[in-house]
Amino acid sequence: MTPQELKARLGESARMVESYLAECLHGRNIPEGLLKAMEYSLLAGGKRLRPVLCLAVAQMMGLEPSRVLPFASSIEFIHTYSLVHDDLPAMDNDDLRRGKPSNHKMFGEASAILAGDGLLTEAFAVMGSVAGDIPADRVVRAMVEVATAAGSGGMVGGQQLDMEYTGRDGVSYDELRGMHAMKTGALIRCSCLSGAILAGASEEDNQRIRIYGEAIGAAFQIVDDILDEVGDEAQLGKPVGSDIEQGKTTYPSLMGIDRSRELAQQHVDRAIEQLRPYEGPDADFLRCLAQYIVDRVS
Amino acid sequence: MTPQELKARLGESARMVESYLAECLHGRNIPEGLLKAMEYSLLAGGKRLRPVLCLAVAQMMGLEPSRVLPFASSIEFIHTYSLVHDDLPAMDNDDLRRGKPSNHKMFGEASAILAGDGLLTEAFAVMGSVAGDIPADRVVRAMVEVATAAGSGGMVGGQQLDMEYTGRDGVSYDELRGMHAMKTGALIRCSCLSGAILAGASEEDNQRIRIYGEAIGAAFQIVDDILDEVGDEAQLGKPVGSDIEQGKTTYPSLMGIDRSRELAQQHVDRAIEQLRPYEGPDADFLRCLAQYIVDRVS
Repeated sequence: MTPQELKARLGESARMVESYLAECLHGRNIPEGLLKAMEYSLLAGGKRLRPVLCLAVAQMMGLEPSRVLPFASSIEFIHTYSLVHDDLPAMDNDDLRRGKPSNHKMFGEASAILAGDGLLTEAFAVMGSVAGDIPADRVVRAMVEVATAAGSGGMVGGQQLDMEYTGRDGVSYDELRGMHAMKTGALIRCSCLSGAILAGASEEDNQRIRIYGEAIGAAFQIVDDILDEVGDEAQLGKPVGSDIEQGKTTYPSLMGIDRSRELAQQHVDRAIEQLRPYEGPDADFLRCLAQYIVDRVS
Repeated sequence: MTPQELKARLGESARMVESYLAECLHGRNIPEGLLKAMEYSLLAGGKRLRPVLCLAVAQMMGLEPSRVLPFASSIEFIHTYSLVHDDLPAMDNDDLRRGKPSNHKMFGEASAILAGDGLLTEAFAVMGSVAGDIPADRVVRAMVEVATAAGSGGMVGGQQLDMEYTGRDGVSYDELRGMHAMKTGALIRCSCLSGAILAGASEEDNQRIRIYGEAIGAAFQIVDDILDEVGDEAQLGKPVGSDIEQGKTTYPSLMGIDRSRELAQQHVDRAIEQLRPYEGPDADFLRCLAQYIVDRVS
Protein backbone atom coordinates (compact mmCIF):
# COMPACT_ATOMS: atom_id res chain seq x y z
CA MET A 1 0.00 0.00 0.00
CA THR A 2 1.51 3.32 -1.09
CA PRO A 3 1.31 6.39 1.18
CA GLN A 4 -1.23 7.80 -1.29
CA GLU A 5 -3.37 4.67 -1.05
CA LEU A 6 -3.17 4.73 2.75
CA LYS A 7 -4.27 8.35 2.87
CA ALA A 8 -7.10 7.68 0.41
CA ARG A 9 -8.44 4.81 2.49
CA LEU A 10 -8.02 6.74 5.75
CA GLY A 11 -9.98 9.60 4.22
CA GLU A 12 -12.70 7.38 2.82
CA SER A 13 -13.18 5.59 6.12
CA ALA A 14 -13.15 8.82 8.13
CA ARG A 15 -15.74 10.35 5.78
CA MET A 16 -18.02 7.38 6.34
CA VAL A 17 -17.79 7.97 10.10
CA GLU A 18 -18.22 11.71 9.60
CA SER A 19 -21.52 11.33 7.73
CA TYR A 20 -22.81 8.99 10.41
CA LEU A 21 -21.81 11.37 13.22
CA ALA A 22 -23.46 14.33 11.46
CA GLU A 23 -26.86 12.59 11.55
CA CYS A 24 -26.89 10.30 14.51
CA LEU A 25 -27.82 12.73 17.31
CA HIS A 26 -30.92 14.01 15.55
CA GLY A 27 -34.37 12.65 16.40
CA ARG A 28 -33.25 11.76 19.92
CA ASN A 29 -35.27 14.39 21.82
CA ILE A 30 -32.13 16.33 22.81
CA PRO A 31 -32.76 19.94 23.95
CA GLU A 32 -31.41 22.32 21.34
CA GLY A 33 -28.80 24.01 23.52
CA LEU A 34 -27.36 20.67 24.57
CA LEU A 35 -27.39 19.26 21.04
CA LYS A 36 -25.41 22.27 19.82
CA ALA A 37 -22.77 21.80 22.51
CA MET A 38 -22.52 18.06 21.79
CA GLU A 39 -22.21 18.51 18.03
CA TYR A 40 -19.77 21.40 18.36
CA SER A 41 -17.17 19.01 19.72
CA LEU A 42 -18.31 15.82 18.00
CA LEU A 43 -18.15 17.41 14.54
CA ALA A 44 -14.94 19.39 15.10
CA GLY A 45 -12.94 17.15 12.79
CA GLY A 46 -10.06 14.92 13.78
CA LYS A 47 -8.69 11.77 12.25
CA ARG A 48 -11.48 9.51 13.59
CA LEU A 49 -8.70 7.01 14.28
CA ARG A 50 -10.67 4.91 16.77
CA PRO A 51 -13.73 4.25 14.58
CA VAL A 52 -11.46 3.72 11.57
CA LEU A 53 -9.57 1.03 13.50
CA CYS A 54 -12.77 -0.65 14.64
CA LEU A 55 -14.15 -0.69 11.09
CA ALA A 56 -10.92 -2.02 9.57
CA VAL A 57 -10.51 -4.83 12.09
CA ALA A 58 -14.16 -5.86 11.75
CA GLN A 59 -13.81 -5.86 7.97
CA MET A 60 -10.59 -7.89 8.09
CA MET A 61 -12.51 -10.44 10.20
CA GLY A 62 -15.36 -10.58 7.69
CA LEU A 63 -17.97 -8.11 8.95
CA GLU A 64 -19.24 -5.43 6.54
CA PRO A 65 -18.47 -1.85 7.59
CA SER A 66 -22.10 -0.76 7.29
CA ARG A 67 -23.12 -3.15 10.07
CA VAL A 68 -20.43 -2.03 12.48
CA LEU A 69 -20.49 1.71 11.63
CA PRO A 70 -22.78 2.83 14.50
CA PHE A 71 -20.75 0.92 17.08
CA ALA A 72 -17.44 2.17 15.67
CA SER A 73 -18.69 5.76 15.59
CA SER A 74 -19.92 5.59 19.17
CA ILE A 75 -16.30 5.14 20.29
CA GLU A 76 -15.71 8.61 18.84
CA PHE A 77 -18.49 9.90 21.16
CA ILE A 78 -16.46 8.57 24.07
CA HIS A 79 -13.19 10.00 22.78
CA THR A 80 -14.91 13.37 22.26
CA TYR A 81 -16.50 13.45 25.72
CA SER A 82 -13.09 12.76 27.27
CA LEU A 83 -11.60 15.76 25.45
CA VAL A 84 -14.47 18.03 26.53
CA HIS A 85 -14.11 17.06 30.19
CA ASP A 86 -10.29 17.10 30.11
CA ASP A 87 -10.32 20.68 28.81
CA LEU A 88 -12.47 21.95 31.72
CA PRO A 89 -10.96 24.60 34.01
CA ALA A 90 -10.89 22.15 36.93
CA MET A 91 -8.93 19.65 34.80
CA ASP A 92 -6.34 20.68 32.17
CA ASN A 93 -7.91 24.14 31.71
CA ASP A 94 -7.34 24.29 27.94
CA ASP A 95 -8.96 27.17 26.06
CA LEU A 96 -8.21 25.71 22.65
CA ARG A 97 -8.93 22.36 21.04
CA ARG A 98 -8.02 21.68 17.43
CA GLY A 99 -7.46 25.40 16.95
CA LYS A 100 -10.97 26.35 18.09
CA PRO A 101 -12.29 27.51 21.48
CA SER A 102 -12.80 24.49 23.71
CA ASN A 103 -16.36 23.46 24.56
CA HIS A 104 -16.66 25.28 27.88
CA LYS A 105 -15.27 28.46 26.29
CA MET A 106 -18.13 28.37 23.79
CA PHE A 107 -21.01 27.10 25.92
CA GLY A 108 -19.97 27.58 29.55
CA GLU A 109 -18.82 25.00 32.05
CA ALA A 110 -22.21 23.58 32.96
CA SER A 111 -23.15 22.82 29.37
CA ALA A 112 -19.70 21.41 28.67
CA ILE A 113 -20.04 19.00 31.60
CA LEU A 114 -23.51 17.98 30.38
CA ALA A 115 -22.40 17.71 26.74
CA GLY A 116 -19.69 15.30 27.88
CA ASP A 117 -22.10 13.32 30.04
CA GLY A 118 -24.56 13.19 27.16
CA LEU A 119 -21.99 11.99 24.63
CA LEU A 120 -20.75 9.28 26.98
CA THR A 121 -24.23 7.99 27.76
CA GLU A 122 -25.51 8.20 24.18
CA ALA A 123 -22.51 6.12 23.08
CA PHE A 124 -23.96 3.08 24.84
CA ALA A 125 -27.42 3.60 23.35
CA VAL A 126 -25.85 3.68 19.89
CA MET A 127 -23.63 0.65 20.55
CA GLY A 128 -26.61 -1.39 21.65
CA SER A 129 -28.51 -0.44 18.50
CA VAL A 130 -26.38 -2.77 16.35
CA ALA A 131 -27.91 -5.79 18.10
CA GLY A 132 -30.45 -6.17 15.29
CA ASP A 133 -27.63 -6.69 12.78
CA ILE A 134 -25.06 -8.51 14.90
CA PRO A 135 -25.68 -11.34 17.43
CA ALA A 136 -26.54 -9.85 20.82
CA ASP A 137 -23.97 -11.88 22.76
CA ARG A 138 -21.17 -10.33 20.71
CA VAL A 139 -22.68 -6.87 21.12
CA VAL A 140 -22.85 -7.14 24.91
CA ARG A 141 -19.31 -8.45 25.11
CA ALA A 142 -18.01 -5.60 22.93
CA MET A 143 -19.95 -3.06 25.02
CA VAL A 144 -18.41 -4.42 28.20
CA GLU A 145 -14.95 -4.15 26.61
CA VAL A 146 -15.57 -0.51 25.73
CA ALA A 147 -17.06 0.37 29.13
CA THR A 148 -14.18 -1.29 30.93
CA ALA A 149 -11.58 0.42 28.74
CA ALA A 150 -13.25 3.83 29.05
CA GLY A 151 -14.03 3.51 32.76
CA SER A 152 -12.30 4.08 36.05
CA GLY A 153 -9.85 1.22 35.56
CA GLY A 154 -9.07 2.57 32.07
CA MET A 155 -9.37 6.01 30.50
CA VAL A 156 -10.99 7.82 33.45
CA GLY A 157 -8.50 6.24 35.87
CA GLY A 158 -5.65 7.26 33.57
CA GLN A 159 -6.80 10.88 33.63
CA GLN A 160 -6.87 10.71 37.44
CA LEU A 161 -3.28 9.39 37.49
CA ASP A 162 -2.22 12.02 34.95
CA MET A 163 -3.45 14.73 37.31
CA GLU A 164 -1.77 13.11 40.29
CA TYR A 165 1.53 12.86 38.38
CA THR A 166 1.40 16.40 36.99
CA GLY A 167 3.87 18.62 38.80
CA ARG A 168 5.30 15.63 40.68
CA ASP A 169 9.04 14.96 40.32
CA GLY A 170 10.41 11.51 39.68
CA VAL A 171 7.55 9.92 37.76
CA SER A 172 9.10 6.67 36.54
CA TYR A 173 8.96 5.06 33.12
CA ASP A 174 6.69 2.30 34.44
CA GLU A 175 4.31 4.83 35.98
CA LEU A 176 4.24 6.89 32.79
CA ARG A 177 3.63 3.84 30.65
CA GLY A 178 0.94 2.48 32.96
CA MET A 179 -0.83 5.84 33.08
CA HIS A 180 -0.84 6.19 29.29
CA ALA A 181 -1.93 2.58 28.79
CA MET A 182 -5.03 3.55 30.77
CA LYS A 183 -5.56 7.12 29.60
CA THR A 184 -5.15 6.69 25.83
CA GLY A 185 -4.13 3.06 25.27
CA ALA A 186 -7.23 1.35 26.58
CA LEU A 187 -9.68 3.08 24.25
CA ILE A 188 -7.48 2.50 21.19
CA ARG A 189 -7.05 -1.14 22.18
CA CYS A 190 -10.79 -1.68 22.60
CA SER A 191 -11.53 0.09 19.31
CA CYS A 192 -9.61 -2.72 17.63
CA LEU A 193 -10.75 -5.52 19.90
CA SER A 194 -14.44 -4.64 19.73
CA GLY A 195 -14.24 -4.85 15.93
CA ALA A 196 -12.92 -8.39 16.22
CA ILE A 197 -15.49 -9.39 18.84
CA LEU A 198 -18.39 -8.02 16.79
CA ALA A 199 -17.15 -9.98 13.78
CA GLY A 200 -17.14 -13.18 15.82
CA ALA A 201 -13.37 -13.71 15.57
CA SER A 202 -11.72 -16.63 17.38
CA GLU A 203 -10.10 -16.14 20.79
CA GLU A 204 -6.68 -16.44 19.17
CA ASP A 205 -7.58 -13.69 16.72
CA ASN A 206 -8.98 -11.55 19.55
CA GLN A 207 -5.72 -11.92 21.43
CA ARG A 208 -3.63 -10.86 18.40
CA ILE A 209 -5.87 -7.85 17.81
CA ARG A 210 -5.74 -6.92 21.49
CA ILE A 211 -1.93 -6.82 21.37
CA TYR A 212 -1.98 -4.95 18.06
CA GLY A 213 -4.26 -2.30 19.60
CA GLU A 214 -2.20 -2.05 22.78
CA ALA A 215 1.00 -1.62 20.81
CA ILE A 216 -0.26 1.07 18.44
CA GLY A 217 -1.83 2.85 21.41
CA ALA A 218 1.55 2.94 23.14
CA ALA A 219 3.27 4.16 19.96
CA PHE A 220 0.60 6.79 19.45
CA GLN A 221 1.14 8.32 22.88
CA ILE A 222 4.92 8.44 22.53
CA VAL A 223 4.51 10.20 19.19
CA ASP A 224 2.05 12.65 20.77
CA ASP A 225 4.63 13.48 23.42
CA ILE A 226 7.30 14.00 20.74
CA LEU A 227 5.00 16.23 18.70
CA ASP A 228 4.32 18.33 21.77
CA GLU A 229 8.04 19.15 21.75
CA VAL A 230 8.93 19.36 18.07
CA GLY A 231 5.59 19.60 16.24
CA ASP A 232 4.01 22.36 14.23
CA GLU A 233 1.59 24.56 16.24
CA ALA A 234 -0.79 25.17 13.33
CA GLN A 235 -1.04 21.45 12.65
CA LEU A 236 -1.43 20.51 16.32
CA GLY A 237 -4.02 23.22 17.01
CA LYS A 238 -2.40 23.94 20.38
CA PRO A 239 0.84 25.51 21.60
CA VAL A 240 3.97 23.38 21.39
CA GLY A 241 5.59 22.68 24.74
CA SER A 242 2.35 22.69 26.73
CA ASP A 243 3.17 19.38 28.46
CA ILE A 244 6.41 20.70 29.91
CA GLU A 245 4.79 23.99 30.84
CA GLN A 246 2.10 22.13 32.77
CA GLY A 247 4.70 20.11 34.65
CA LYS A 248 3.95 16.80 32.91
CA THR A 249 6.46 14.02 32.58
CA THR A 250 6.76 12.90 28.96
CA TYR A 251 8.67 10.21 27.09
CA PRO A 252 11.11 12.79 25.64
CA SER A 253 11.64 14.31 29.10
CA LEU A 254 12.49 10.86 30.48
CA MET A 255 14.63 9.47 27.66
CA GLY A 256 15.14 12.13 24.98
CA ILE A 257 13.66 12.46 21.51
CA ASP A 258 15.79 9.86 19.69
CA ARG A 259 15.22 7.09 22.21
CA SER A 260 11.51 7.94 22.28
CA ARG A 261 11.35 7.56 18.50
CA GLU A 262 13.05 4.17 18.72
CA LEU A 263 10.64 3.03 21.40
CA ALA A 264 7.64 4.07 19.31
CA GLN A 265 9.05 2.11 16.35
CA GLN A 266 9.49 -0.98 18.56
CA HIS A 267 5.81 -0.82 19.52
CA VAL A 268 4.85 -0.46 15.86
CA ASP A 269 6.98 -3.48 14.92
CA ARG A 270 5.27 -5.49 17.65
CA ALA A 271 1.87 -4.41 16.33
CA ILE A 272 2.72 -5.39 12.76
CA GLU A 273 4.12 -8.74 13.91
CA GLN A 274 0.71 -9.62 15.37
CA LEU A 275 -0.91 -9.22 11.96
CA ARG A 276 1.33 -11.83 10.27
CA PRO A 277 -1.45 -14.44 9.79
CA TYR A 278 -3.71 -12.02 7.92
CA GLU A 279 -3.72 -11.21 4.21
CA GLY A 280 -5.66 -8.91 1.93
CA PRO A 281 -6.24 -5.15 1.71
CA ASP A 282 -7.65 -4.73 5.25
CA ALA A 283 -4.63 -6.35 6.87
CA ASP A 284 -2.35 -4.25 4.65
CA PHE A 285 -4.21 -1.15 5.69
CA LEU A 286 -3.83 -1.97 9.41
CA ARG A 287 -0.10 -2.63 8.94
CA CYS A 288 0.45 0.64 7.07
CA LEU A 289 -1.67 2.51 9.60
CA ALA A 290 0.59 1.27 12.40
CA GLN A 291 3.69 2.49 10.59
CA TYR A 292 2.01 5.77 9.69
CA ILE A 293 1.64 6.60 13.39
CA VAL A 294 5.41 6.76 13.79
CA ASP A 295 6.10 8.27 10.38
CA ARG A 296 4.38 11.44 11.56
CA VAL A 297 7.54 12.23 13.55
CA SER A 298 10.36 10.79 11.49
CA MET B 1 -49.15 -5.23 53.13
CA THR B 2 -48.89 -3.25 56.40
CA PRO B 3 -46.64 -0.18 56.62
CA GLN B 4 -44.32 -2.29 58.80
CA GLU B 5 -44.13 -5.02 56.19
CA LEU B 6 -43.48 -2.46 53.47
CA LYS B 7 -40.63 -0.92 55.43
CA ALA B 8 -39.18 -4.33 56.22
CA ARG B 9 -39.14 -5.34 52.58
CA LEU B 10 -37.78 -1.94 51.49
CA GLY B 11 -34.99 -2.31 54.03
CA GLU B 12 -34.20 -5.89 53.07
CA SER B 13 -34.05 -5.07 49.39
CA ALA B 14 -31.94 -1.93 49.96
CA ARG B 15 -29.51 -3.92 52.12
CA MET B 16 -29.06 -6.45 49.33
CA VAL B 17 -28.15 -3.59 46.98
CA GLU B 18 -25.95 -2.02 49.64
CA SER B 19 -23.81 -5.15 50.07
CA TYR B 20 -23.40 -5.44 46.33
CA LEU B 21 -22.38 -1.78 45.99
CA ALA B 22 -19.86 -2.08 48.82
CA GLU B 23 -17.93 -4.79 46.93
CA CYS B 24 -18.48 -4.20 43.25
CA LEU B 25 -15.86 -1.54 42.54
CA HIS B 26 -13.00 -3.56 44.00
CA GLY B 27 -10.68 -5.59 41.78
CA ARG B 28 -11.30 -3.27 38.84
CA ASN B 29 -7.87 -1.62 38.68
CA ILE B 30 -9.24 1.74 39.84
CA PRO B 31 -6.59 4.20 41.16
CA GLU B 32 -7.03 4.57 44.91
CA GLY B 33 -7.82 8.30 44.91
CA LEU B 34 -10.53 7.82 42.32
CA LEU B 35 -12.00 4.76 44.03
CA LYS B 36 -12.32 6.73 47.28
CA ALA B 37 -14.17 9.55 45.55
CA MET B 38 -16.48 7.11 43.75
CA GLU B 39 -17.30 5.12 46.89
CA TYR B 40 -17.75 8.25 49.02
CA SER B 41 -20.85 9.11 47.02
CA LEU B 42 -21.94 5.62 46.02
CA LEU B 43 -21.96 4.40 49.63
CA ALA B 44 -23.48 7.55 51.17
CA GLY B 45 -26.79 5.86 51.86
CA GLY B 46 -30.10 6.72 50.32
CA LYS B 47 -33.23 4.70 49.75
CA ARG B 48 -31.82 2.83 46.71
CA LEU B 49 -35.26 3.30 45.21
CA ARG B 50 -34.22 2.66 41.59
CA PRO B 51 -32.51 -0.70 42.16
CA VAL B 52 -35.30 -1.74 44.54
CA LEU B 53 -37.85 -1.05 41.79
CA CYS B 54 -35.83 -2.95 39.20
CA LEU B 55 -35.47 -5.96 41.50
CA ALA B 56 -39.15 -5.99 42.48
CA VAL B 57 -40.43 -5.76 38.90
CA ALA B 58 -38.02 -8.47 37.73
CA GLN B 59 -39.11 -10.70 40.59
CA MET B 60 -42.80 -10.08 39.89
CA MET B 61 -42.11 -11.20 36.30
CA GLY B 62 -40.36 -14.36 37.47
CA LEU B 63 -36.65 -13.52 37.56
CA GLU B 64 -34.71 -14.20 40.77
CA PRO B 65 -33.25 -11.10 42.43
CA SER B 66 -29.74 -12.58 42.58
CA ARG B 67 -29.55 -12.69 38.79
CA VAL B 68 -30.68 -9.12 38.29
CA LEU B 69 -28.85 -7.57 41.28
CA PRO B 70 -25.76 -6.29 39.39
CA PHE B 71 -27.90 -4.69 36.70
CA ALA B 72 -30.28 -3.15 39.23
CA SER B 73 -27.38 -1.81 41.31
CA SER B 74 -25.70 -0.26 38.29
CA ILE B 75 -28.68 2.08 37.95
CA GLU B 76 -27.66 3.44 41.35
CA PHE B 77 -24.21 4.18 39.87
CA ILE B 78 -25.96 6.35 37.31
CA HIS B 79 -28.19 8.05 39.86
CA THR B 80 -25.12 8.73 42.03
CA TYR B 81 -23.02 10.14 39.19
CA SER B 82 -25.87 12.52 38.33
CA LEU B 83 -25.93 13.84 41.91
CA VAL B 84 -22.15 14.31 41.94
CA HIS B 85 -22.16 16.28 38.68
CA ASP B 86 -25.32 18.26 39.57
CA ASP B 87 -23.70 19.43 42.82
CA LEU B 88 -20.64 20.89 41.01
CA PRO B 89 -20.03 24.65 41.34
CA ALA B 90 -20.73 25.17 37.62
CA MET B 91 -24.10 23.40 38.03
CA ASP B 92 -26.26 23.66 41.17
CA ASN B 93 -23.27 24.51 43.39
CA ASP B 94 -24.45 22.49 46.39
CA ASP B 95 -22.03 22.06 49.29
CA LEU B 96 -24.14 19.45 51.05
CA ARG B 97 -25.64 16.16 49.94
CA ARG B 98 -27.51 13.93 52.37
CA GLY B 99 -26.12 16.03 55.20
CA LYS B 100 -22.48 15.46 54.22
CA PRO B 101 -20.07 17.60 52.19
CA SER B 102 -20.73 17.04 48.50
CA ASN B 103 -18.17 15.14 46.46
CA HIS B 104 -16.25 18.14 45.09
CA LYS B 105 -16.08 19.65 48.59
CA MET B 106 -14.30 16.50 49.77
CA PHE B 107 -12.14 15.64 46.78
CA GLY B 108 -11.96 18.77 44.61
CA GLU B 109 -13.74 19.51 41.38
CA ALA B 110 -11.49 17.52 39.06
CA SER B 111 -11.87 14.30 41.05
CA ALA B 112 -15.61 14.86 41.38
CA ILE B 113 -15.96 15.19 37.61
CA LEU B 114 -13.89 12.02 37.14
CA ALA B 115 -15.72 10.12 39.88
CA GLY B 116 -18.98 10.89 38.09
CA ASP B 117 -17.56 9.90 34.72
CA GLY B 118 -16.20 6.71 36.24
CA LEU B 119 -19.50 5.74 37.90
CA LEU B 120 -21.43 6.37 34.69
CA THR B 121 -19.07 4.31 32.55
CA GLU B 122 -18.67 1.49 35.07
CA ALA B 123 -22.46 1.17 35.19
CA PHE B 124 -22.49 -0.19 31.65
CA ALA B 125 -19.68 -2.64 32.34
CA VAL B 126 -21.66 -3.98 35.29
CA MET B 127 -24.94 -4.12 33.34
CA GLY B 128 -23.30 -6.13 30.59
CA SER B 129 -21.90 -8.58 33.13
CA VAL B 130 -25.33 -10.17 33.70
CA ALA B 131 -25.28 -11.56 30.14
CA GLY B 132 -23.97 -14.90 31.45
CA ASP B 133 -27.10 -15.31 33.57
CA ILE B 134 -29.73 -13.66 31.39
CA PRO B 135 -30.15 -13.98 27.58
CA ALA B 136 -27.94 -11.44 25.82
CA ASP B 137 -30.71 -9.98 23.64
CA ARG B 138 -32.65 -8.97 26.75
CA VAL B 139 -29.52 -7.53 28.33
CA VAL B 140 -28.69 -5.35 25.30
CA ARG B 141 -32.25 -4.12 25.09
CA ALA B 142 -32.31 -3.21 28.78
CA MET B 143 -28.94 -1.46 28.45
CA VAL B 144 -30.26 0.61 25.55
CA GLU B 145 -33.31 1.56 27.64
CA VAL B 146 -31.09 2.73 30.48
CA ALA B 147 -28.67 4.61 28.20
CA THR B 148 -31.53 6.34 26.42
CA ALA B 149 -33.25 7.26 29.69
CA ALA B 150 -30.03 8.53 31.28
CA GLY B 151 -28.74 10.30 28.16
CA SER B 152 -29.18 13.63 26.45
CA GLY B 153 -32.81 12.97 25.51
CA GLY B 154 -33.49 11.92 29.12
CA MET B 155 -31.79 12.71 32.42
CA VAL B 156 -28.89 14.77 31.04
CA GLY B 157 -31.22 16.72 28.77
CA GLY B 158 -33.55 17.32 31.72
CA GLN B 159 -30.71 18.81 33.73
CA GLN B 160 -29.91 21.12 30.80
CA LEU B 161 -33.56 22.26 30.69
CA ASP B 162 -33.60 22.69 34.47
CA MET B 163 -30.66 25.09 34.18
CA GLU B 164 -32.27 26.95 31.30
CA TYR B 165 -35.54 27.32 33.24
CA THR B 166 -33.87 28.37 36.50
CA GLY B 167 -34.37 32.08 37.09
CA ARG B 168 -36.71 32.33 34.09
CA ASP B 169 -40.22 33.68 34.71
CA GLY B 170 -43.29 32.04 33.27
CA VAL B 171 -42.17 28.41 33.10
CA SER B 172 -45.41 26.59 32.25
CA TYR B 173 -46.87 23.43 33.74
CA ASP B 174 -46.14 21.52 30.51
CA GLU B 175 -42.53 22.70 30.48
CA LEU B 176 -42.08 21.79 34.15
CA ARG B 177 -43.63 18.38 33.68
CA GLY B 178 -41.61 17.68 30.51
CA MET B 179 -38.37 18.72 32.19
CA HIS B 180 -38.99 16.51 35.23
CA ALA B 181 -40.10 13.59 33.06
CA MET B 182 -36.61 13.77 31.56
CA LYS B 183 -34.56 14.76 34.60
CA THR B 184 -35.91 12.34 37.19
CA GLY B 185 -38.77 10.46 35.53
CA ALA B 186 -36.82 8.70 32.79
CA LEU B 187 -34.40 6.92 35.11
CA ILE B 188 -37.17 5.79 37.48
CA ARG B 189 -39.22 4.57 34.51
CA CYS B 190 -36.32 2.58 33.07
CA SER B 191 -35.48 1.10 36.47
CA CYS B 192 -38.89 -0.56 36.34
CA LEU B 193 -38.93 -1.30 32.62
CA SER B 194 -35.44 -2.83 32.53
CA GLY B 195 -36.52 -5.28 35.25
CA ALA B 196 -39.42 -6.41 33.06
CA ILE B 197 -37.26 -6.64 29.94
CA LEU B 198 -34.59 -8.68 31.72
CA ALA B 199 -37.28 -11.07 32.96
CA GLY B 200 -38.51 -11.58 29.40
CA ALA B 201 -41.95 -10.07 30.06
CA SER B 202 -44.45 -9.70 27.21
CA GLU B 203 -44.80 -6.42 25.33
CA GLU B 204 -48.13 -5.83 27.07
CA ASP B 205 -46.49 -6.30 30.45
CA ASN B 206 -43.62 -4.02 29.42
CA GLN B 207 -46.09 -1.32 28.48
CA ARG B 208 -47.91 -1.57 31.83
CA ILE B 209 -44.62 -1.40 33.71
CA ARG B 210 -43.46 1.54 31.61
CA ILE B 211 -46.57 3.52 32.57
CA TYR B 212 -46.25 2.43 36.22
CA GLY B 213 -42.66 3.73 36.25
CA GLU B 214 -43.55 6.98 34.51
CA ALA B 215 -46.39 7.64 36.93
CA ILE B 216 -44.45 7.00 40.13
CA GLY B 217 -41.59 9.08 38.72
CA ALA B 218 -43.96 12.00 38.21
CA ALA B 219 -45.43 11.57 41.71
CA PHE B 220 -41.95 11.33 43.20
CA GLN B 221 -40.88 14.67 41.75
CA ILE B 222 -43.99 16.50 42.88
CA VAL B 223 -43.46 15.15 46.39
CA ASP B 224 -39.83 16.26 46.26
CA ASP B 225 -40.95 19.78 45.38
CA ILE B 226 -43.46 19.75 48.25
CA LEU B 227 -40.83 18.52 50.70
CA ASP B 228 -38.51 21.31 49.61
CA GLU B 229 -41.15 23.69 50.95
CA VAL B 230 -42.57 21.94 53.99
CA GLY B 231 -40.07 19.17 54.77
CA ASP B 232 -37.74 18.61 57.70
CA GLU B 233 -34.17 19.85 57.10
CA ALA B 234 -32.51 17.11 59.13
CA GLN B 235 -34.38 14.44 57.21
CA LEU B 236 -33.78 16.04 53.82
CA GLY B 237 -30.08 16.65 54.47
CA LYS B 238 -30.35 20.05 52.77
CA PRO B 239 -31.92 23.43 53.57
CA VAL B 240 -35.66 23.72 53.06
CA GLY B 241 -36.65 26.32 50.44
CA SER B 242 -33.55 25.90 48.29
CA ASP B 243 -35.59 25.56 45.08
CA ILE B 244 -37.27 28.94 45.52
CA GLU B 245 -34.00 30.53 46.60
CA GLN B 246 -32.34 29.30 43.40
CA GLY B 247 -35.16 30.71 41.28
CA LYS B 248 -36.64 27.34 40.32
CA THR B 249 -40.23 26.87 39.31
CA THR B 250 -41.84 24.07 41.35
CA TYR B 251 -45.22 22.37 41.42
CA PRO B 252 -46.20 24.19 44.65
CA SER B 253 -45.11 27.52 43.17
CA LEU B 254 -47.32 26.89 40.13
CA MET B 255 -50.40 25.42 41.80
CA GLY B 256 -50.01 25.51 45.58
CA ILE B 257 -49.34 22.70 48.05
CA ASP B 258 -52.83 21.19 48.20
CA ARG B 259 -53.31 20.92 44.46
CA SER B 260 -49.77 19.49 44.15
CA ARG B 261 -50.65 16.79 46.67
CA GLU B 262 -53.78 15.91 44.72
CA LEU B 263 -51.81 15.71 41.48
CA ALA B 264 -49.23 13.40 43.07
CA GLN B 265 -52.05 11.14 44.31
CA GLN B 266 -53.54 11.03 40.81
CA HIS B 267 -50.22 9.80 39.41
CA VAL B 268 -50.02 7.16 42.14
CA ASP B 269 -53.55 5.97 41.38
CA ARG B 270 -52.61 5.66 37.70
CA ALA B 271 -49.51 3.66 38.64
CA ILE B 272 -51.49 1.27 40.86
CA GLU B 273 -54.15 0.84 38.16
CA GLN B 274 -51.48 -0.51 35.79
CA LEU B 275 -50.67 -3.32 38.23
CA ARG B 276 -54.23 -4.70 38.30
CA PRO B 277 -53.40 -7.92 36.39
CA TYR B 278 -50.67 -8.94 38.85
CA GLU B 279 -51.01 -10.85 42.11
CA GLY B 280 -48.71 -12.01 44.84
CA PRO B 281 -46.31 -10.31 47.28
CA ASP B 282 -44.17 -8.57 44.63
CA ALA B 283 -47.17 -6.88 43.03
CA ASP B 284 -48.44 -5.91 46.50
CA PHE B 285 -45.05 -4.46 47.32
CA LEU B 286 -45.02 -2.36 44.12
CA ARG B 287 -48.54 -1.09 44.84
CA CYS B 288 -47.69 -0.12 48.43
CA LEU B 289 -44.41 1.44 47.29
CA ALA B 290 -46.33 3.70 44.91
CA GLN B 291 -48.64 4.86 47.69
CA TYR B 292 -45.72 5.26 50.08
CA ILE B 293 -44.20 7.91 47.79
CA VAL B 294 -47.14 10.22 48.40
CA ASP B 295 -47.65 9.25 52.03
CA ARG B 296 -44.32 10.91 52.81
CA VAL B 297 -46.09 14.27 52.50
CA SER B 298 -49.62 13.59 53.69
